[in-house]
Amino acid sequence: MTGFAKTPSPPYYAVIFTSQRNEPEAAYDEMAAALTRKVRAHRGCLGVESVRGANGYGITVAYFSDHSAIASWKADAEHQEAQRLGKERWYEKYQVRFARVERDYEGP
Amino acid sequence: MTGFAKTPSPPYYAVIFTSQRNEPEAAYDEMAAALTRKVRAHRGCLGVESVRGANGYGITVAYFSDHSAIASWKADAEHQEAQRLGKERWYEKYQVRFARVERDYEGP
Repeated sequence: MTGFAKTPSPPYYAVIFTSQRNEPEAAYDEMAAALTRKVRAHRGCLGVESVRGANGYGITVAYFSDHSAIASWKADAEHQEAQRLGKERWYEKYQVRFARVERDYEGP
Repeated sequence: MTGFAKTPSPPYYAVIFTSQRNEPEAAYDEMAAALTRKVRAHRGCLGVESVRGANGYGITVAYFSDHSAIASWKADAEHQEAQRLGKERWYEKYQVRFARVERDYEGP
């Protein structure tokens, strides 16, 4: 649980990452927590929202100011290593979607 | 847990709904399940992905083909009633973001 991202007025960008974990592994939890801290400090990252259910299915949405911030985060060395481990070992399946946020509101 | 949405090639649209529930309530679970079924059958809905943690924080992403499909779902009578209950009773806080998906991929 990460709480709510405090994003500015649109437009900005969202990377929606949906995933089904394989068996739980402590190394995953540690790296996921470290990466979440790191992306939050990355230039152009506006916030992260993330939740994973007990069955291993999860959704993470990271918000960025622009395409170049997304590209430089994609290229981050620690993130690259996590992407490699995710592909080889951690995820049964995942989907990544890049979207431009056009409008938002909050409540109640 | 809803699994993965089988979306077509971009562009398409995503409505990202992040929320913090108040105390659990069986009536909420029933209406949420009914609405998820209903939106999936709605014209222009491409799929729904949703997960809520034990602490009541959740993320739901619904995908649509175009803006008019989003608008007609927003206006659905049963959905309007759920929006009213959500505002008055179910959610401590929520954020809604409307985004245009520009690119996607899946793995491993």
